[in-house]
Amino acid sequence: MQTIIGVMGPGEQATARDMQVAYELGQAIATAGWVLLTGGRPVGVMAAASRGAKGAGGLTIGILPSKHREDAADAIDIAIVTGMGNGRNIINVLSSSVIISCGLGAGTAAEVALAIKTGKPIVLLNLSEMDCRFFQNLASYPLGIAGHVEDAIALVHQFLSLTSG
Amino acid sequence: MQTIIGVMGPGEQATARDMQVAYELGQAIATAGWVLLTGGRPVGVMAAASRGAKGAGGLTIGILPSKHREDAADAIDIAIVTGMGNGRNIINVLSSSVIISCGLGAGTAAEVALAIKTGKPIVLLNLSEMDCRFFQNLASYPLGIAGHVEDAIALVHQFLSLTSG
Amino acid sequence: MQTIIGVMGPGEQATARDMQVAYELGQAIATAGWVLLTGGRPVGVMAAASRGAKGAGGLTIGILPSKHREDAADAIDIAIVTGMGNGRNIINVLSSSVIISCGLGAGTAAEVALAIKTGKPIVLLNLSEMDCRFFQNLASYPLGIAGHVEDAIALVHQFLSLTSG
Amino acid sequence: MQTIIGVMGPGEQATARDMQVAYELGQAIATAGWVLLTGGRPVGVMAAASRGAKGAGGLTIGILPSKHREDAADAIDIAIVTGMGNGRNIINVLSSSVIISCGLGAGTAAEVALAIKTGKPIVLLNLSEMDCRFFQNLASYPLGIAGHVEDAIALVHQFLSLTSG
Repeated sequence: MQTIIGVMGPGEQATARDMQVAYELGQAIATAGWVLLTGGRPVGVMAAASRGAKGAGGLTIGILPSKHREDAADAIDIAIVTGMGNGRNIINVLSSSVIISCGLGAGTAAEVALAIKTGKPIVLLNLSEMDCRFFQNLASYPLGIAGHVEDAIALVHQFLSLTSG
Repeated sequence: MQTIIGVMGPGEQATARDMQVAYELGQAIATAGWVLLTGGRPVGVMAAASRGAKGAGGLTIGILPSKHREDAADAIDIAIVTGMGNGRNIINVLSSSVIISCGLGAGTAAEVALAIKTGKPIVLLNLSEMDCRFFQNLASYPLGIAGHVEDAIALVHQFLSLTSG
Repeated sequence: MQTIIGVMGPGEQATARDMQVAYELGQAIATAGWVLLTGGRPVGVMAAASRGAKGAGGLTIGILPSKHREDAADAIDIAIVTGMGNGRNIINVLSSSVIISCGLGAGTAAEVALAIKTGKPIVLLNLSEMDCRFFQNLASYPLGIAGHVEDAIALVHQFLSLTSG
Repeated sequence: MQTIIGVMGPGEQATARDMQVAYELGQAIATAGWVLLTGGRPVGVMAAASRGAKGAGGLTIGILPSKHREDAADAIDIAIVTGMGNGRNIINVLSSSVIISCGLGAGTAAEVALAIKTGKPIVLLNLSEMDCRFFQNLASYPLGIAGHVEDAIALVHQFLSLTSG
């Protein structure tokens, strides 16, 4: 079975920086041999991370809120079509071995909180100190905190070795 | 159609204070003539708010994560059985005209974030200033902030009059 | 906790007969003191059964596929808003103590099949002999078969006494 | 984006014949260059079709009802973990460009009915004449009926050319 890494982040509200980081993160995930999972919409962090991963020869999965596969971002290889709106967020979380938050919107926050609720390993990338503290307070286990893509990838390696070890 | 007010809060992790406040909140919701909706499990804020509402003659709905109605709290009148685990959180949010957060756990945070994502009126009851600020930063509209049950109920009245007005 | 009886049947494709029977079925369910649950849309068997139940003083629940409570049929008291499209069918089934099929469309067939899959007591009302045989072949337990509303109600009483007995 | 073909069929109740046909069907789907999607559980048609596809070098997706990826069949490459029980059936249907029913259980019948409800192209493989007639009566468009794996694959080709044409 393939190792799936979920990247969560803002859609329409993503900043240029969020998207640049997401693109590099997607590249790095593909280069590490992992499958990338996102929320699949053709905007923001979802689209940018998928482009990065696909450009680096990786496989990209999108878990779509809508009921039409045509709504997926261009760089999605495998569109999982749920028709469940934000009800699909839990699927993003449960299907990923590690969740990386890249930027923060309301949907992202819901996914990170669900990931904490279900005990998933989480990497918070480029979040403010206050946002990191908020999430860490919700969790009874240490969350990974990263300032750069390489740190995030190193944390994913570490979490994966703990889970399978 | 009846007006449904959703109360979200911690389950097993609820403090004695969370549960006392939830009980009074349930009472006040029933007294106002609204239907109470919670996540339906027999613990914490869900159970306490439902007991309060039922004791005051109100109708109580529980949206259960499990697939067995027997898993509902005692004071639930209407058990909606989803079998969807935390996938049911979006149903809690979408079915409520206003969402009140009473205390904060990871599941609660996911629900408040989803409520922001879908533009629902929200009252944050007894949350720390930092937690309120976190959620307000995610939203492009003002969240209600209350320190007492009466303030929360006043905010609900206000939000309902805006929505239907 | 209240006893919920689910009535499933065609929406836009319902015949005049389906709707007449659904109306009487809704009345009879309310008169028996049970809560009526349907798919909640403002058409066909869902709308007719809800009107019948509400006219007889009963409580009516609608499990909506859309994400807007405004999409509920007029006679729905409690709108449960899922935003999950046909993903909500399993909730209709799991939340009902007995499922009654009144007429048959593709959505109804999906719900009856799910009810069989999850072992729910089922009454097939006014289905053709061939359709009854199809469903009975899928089930390892006897399905109720009724030609009139009174027979259906008698079967519900029987199933409820077995479950709680 | 990759073309996904969904194979639905009985789990624990699958016959030896169902599983043999499912294995060959999985092989043929992979050979045609399509991605195989099943319900992902380690039994029956889901497991057999996945083994066939993986043995032929194909990519296999499993949409799991449980909340643990460890519950997937051995030959699943990509486990999509929903934690939604049979609520995940709609995802199987919406994510597949064509649905093939291989054998028939209650869960399969629910999925075929949902596929009709959402207007998906469907191939009924090795179903009895009565079962084919039942489903055809529910649909306002012609369902594909196949007696052999090769016929099923030919029908999939035909449906795909119509959809994209």
